[in-house]
Amino acid sequence: MPKETNKTVVSKILDTKDITICDATAQMITKARKDGVELCFDRAANMKPCPIGADSACCKHCSMGPCRLNARDPYGKVGICGATIDTIMARNFGRMVAAGAAAHTDHGMAMLDLFREVVNGHITDFEIKDPQKLIDVAASIDIDVEGRSLEDVANDLYAELERTYTQVEGEIPFAKRVPEKTLETWRKLGIVPRGAMREIMELMHRTHIGVDQHYENITKQCNRTALADGWGGSMVSTEISDILYGTPSPVVAEVNMGVLKENMVNIIIHGHEPNLFESVIASVNSPTLVEAAKAAGADGINLVGMCCSGAEMMSRHGIPHAGNFTSSEAILCTGAVDAMGVDIQCIKQGLAKVAECYKTPLFTTNTRCHIEGAAHIEFIEHDPRACTDEIVIKAITRFKSRSLPVEIPQIVNPGVHGFSYESINYMLGGSFRGSYTPLNENIINGRIRGVAGVVGCTNPRVKQDYVHIDKKRKALGIDKARERVLVAMADRRDIEAA
Amino acid sequence: MPKETNKTVVSKILDTKDITICDATAQMITKARKDGVELCFDRAANMKPCPIGADSACCKHCSMGPCRLNARDPYGKVGICGATIDTIMARNFGRMVAAGAAAHTDHGMAMLDLFREVVNGHITDFEIKDPQKLIDVAASIDIDVEGRSLEDVANDLYAELERTYTQVEGEIPFAKRVPEKTLETWRKLGIVPRGAMREIMELMHRTHIGVDQHYENITKQCNRTALADGWGGSMVSTEISDILYGTPSPVVAEVNMGVLKENMVNIIIHGHEPNLFESVIASVNSPTLVEAAKAAGADGINLVGMCCSGAEMMSRHGIPHAGNFTSSEAILCTGAVDAMGVDIQCIKQGLAKVAECYKTPLFTTNTRCHIEGAAHIEFIEHDPRACTDEIVIKAITRFKSRSLPVEIPQIVNPGVHGFSYESINYMLGGSFRGSYTPLNENIINGRIRGVAGVVGCTNPRVKQDYVHIDKKRKALGIDKARERVLVAMADRRDIEAA
Repeated sequence: MPKETNKTVVSKILDTKDITICDATAQMITKARKDGVELCFDRAANMKPCPIGADSACCKHCSMGPCRLNARDPYGKVGICGATIDTIMARNFGRMVAAGAAAHTDHGMAMLDLFREVVNGHITDFEIKDPQKLIDVAASIDIDVEGRSLEDVANDLYAELERTYTQVEGEIPFAKRVPEKTLETWRKLGIVPRGAMREIMELMHRTHIGVDQHYENITKQCNRTALADGWGGSMVSTEISDILYGTPSPVVAEVNMGVLKENMVNIIIHGHEPNLFESVIASVNSPTLVEAAKAAGADGINLVGMCCSGAEMMSRHGIPHAGNFTSSEAILCTGAVDAMGVDIQCIKQGLAKVAECYKTPLFTTNTRCHIEGAAHIEFIEHDPRACTDEIVIKAITRFKSRSLPVEIPQIVNPGVHGFSYESINYMLGGSFRGSYTPLNENIINGRIRGVAGVVGCTNPRVKQDYVHIDKKRKALGIDKARERVLVAMADRRDIEAA
Repeated sequence: MPKETNKTVVSKILDTKDITICDATAQMITKARKDGVELCFDRAANMKPCPIGADSACCKHCSMGPCRLNARDPYGKVGICGATIDTIMARNFGRMVAAGAAAHTDHGMAMLDLFREVVNGHITDFEIKDPQKLIDVAASIDIDVEGRSLEDVANDLYAELERTYTQVEGEIPFAKRVPEKTLETWRKLGIVPRGAMREIMELMHRTHIGVDQHYENITKQCNRTALADGWGGSMVSTEISDILYGTPSPVVAEVNMGVLKENMVNIIIHGHEPNLFESVIASVNSPTLVEAAKAAGADGINLVGMCCSGAEMMSRHGIPHAGNFTSSEAILCTGAVDAMGVDIQCIKQGLAKVAECYKTPLFTTNTRCHIEGAAHIEFIEHDPRACTDEIVIKAITRFKSRSLPVEIPQIVNPGVHGFSYESINYMLGGSFRGSYTPLNENIINGRIRGVAGVVGCTNPRVKQDYVHIDKKRKALGIDKARERVLVAMADRRDIEAA
């Protein structure tokens, strides 16, 4: 296929203060413009969204379409099959739910795949780091744990949790954790999920041509699928990550682009699966590779994270975090990134072009995510270091031959992260009687006004970080100190949703 | 929600000979125009397809979009995330594969659900009608059948076939049926499917923002998912239908709108699941209901099929078939349809409005398909007659109060249908040595020029039936007599794909 030409057309240039409230990203946007490099912000400014598509008034689910309705005269027209605007919007929303649930759930199932192979002994490079969590999770879904070996409990737990994805009837195992009254409501509504994969399949089916054509009935299946994600795929993913890599507890870590170091080999890992990142940690601590970095003239190797697996490593190991989704291209403009390794989700295809401009090697590593123009080094859990050592070696090579000027925004924000459910439970009550009672009571008596979960990615169509920080701060009327704690807690929610 | 007004705007009127080669449908289109009723053909003529969407150059998979590229200058622009036209088109195609596979597979799993409940004795209104087929299918995937009870074999077969949908690793059971060389190629390419639900989930994940962004890699997962459908979900569906309802063998049946009878209570069943249709057969043969029809002044009850479950019943029981997908609204214009019962797939939402115009009660019956404006009578396999008797009763009531003129096109095409794999195998070789050898040899020696599978729905954007009949006949250079046999064989393929 012909490659896109390198010409950059920036016909509409916005002021950086309208693009982001992150000073580091703003500095890199300015540099990118000077360097003639196009970023997602430029593309967003120049991409006129389809007005019909943006209103969800377009249906292209079958080969009779695409059918376009008019959201300003919603009932004046129907699709070729007769689908009304209500059906079309419900279908479009249903497809979003199916795709989102599939993303979380496929990630969760991949974590469970790893757990299975660790438990059955086929994989030895990973291990159960938090046996107590394993026992707690098993006990929470009525698996007998008393006097049994960890291996037996782990085997039972795998079999039981696999049902979260596969079971074709009945209720998912974590339904046992749902508060009684809530579960009763779900049962009455018929939305207690079967296996997540069945709910996703059924939602895809029902949103196809000539199947479900009542927005209420479609929305009902959206609810069931969303619960299969939140109480199924995503929740299993959080629990298994903690079992395999340890449950986070509060830890100090630095955030922002200033965590890059000019005199070190900088490696960014960006994506969503902790497996890759954990193995990179082992690689950058290998004496041979540290020696190689020093031999290349560096002070050492500097590993930083981005996006969700970055947040996970920050919470678990205090690894510095360089920025979120919208900054992933911008940070390459520092010229200081010697390698970027990615796995799945939120990996912009635009990274390939920006990386090429700054001669940063970009590596895809997951079988589910290849990018045209990026080198692929398959990450195989049975031999993880083969991939991650290679990334480090390539980074050292790039450090040695750095030829472009380096400009790192000197901004670093310290913070406390890693407020997992378990650590808050411990802190509120102490080890002998861990409990959320103090928090609950203080919410009930009004001393605490509420708890906000600030979750979700940034979007270059909206001023970066503004919604997450400024707006919520004003709405809650909180000062910066309290905010820091809330943001740290929110990080943890991000991980749970990842 | 406000209901669409009943006004009909037909701004672009096509000549019926440009719309269809089916004379009966043409007659009904003319009547619909006289009656001021809008059909799918009118909507197709007046719905300008979105040119960008039709080129698959639009991406609305994430909230940064919808992004619109230009298919005439494909590499001049990329999406906000940087996705190229290649990624976007592969993604869009991937979503089509996921939706199609999900539809077939969800239907297949529903058939298997019924099989499980029949085998474990929870459902007694259905039974295993073809024990020999059960044994043959079980043996084909290495289940021990010698000297074992049918129940034991059936239990093992259920457990094994469930893996077609659920298994998270390994190969689906029917991979054992794949010719050795083909299987070897699939293995080399890494596309032997795991469970169909896992493949669908992974494809939905990979086509989401920031995951797979190489068209080759996306297409590879499309292949794996398609195989999980064709050799998994769909194949299980065919086999289970035969086991539960009997394997078709050649049978004479009539096709076209002339199968409706003015002096009888006409009931159309339209959709894809044989369960509903089989139960309606029992209902229309109930002496009480036949008596009620006669008491209402009818000569009896006339059950006819449409679309895919109609084709299945034609092949299995010789039940007349009234028409395909594109004629489902048109046939209501006869005024002779006293009830239409639908289940899932290819049920146009437009049916509700046309049915209202001709005072035909339209019933949805499946939990996965409701239609705004249609009455819903849930079909429950544990008590199927509760639903289907009700449909018959409502049809009799409508017959009694018919107030609009009836016009039935007097066209009927007889044909021989029901050429299943098993019956062709038997006919070619005889019962002691059933074999496809005579067919294979005659293809090899050139006496038979080839076998055409004419599969798939009509589309109101293309002249109805033209592609299936006229064009293929000309391309193959065959006469009408030979064609009849080929079309009958193709019907069977349609069922297998359903």
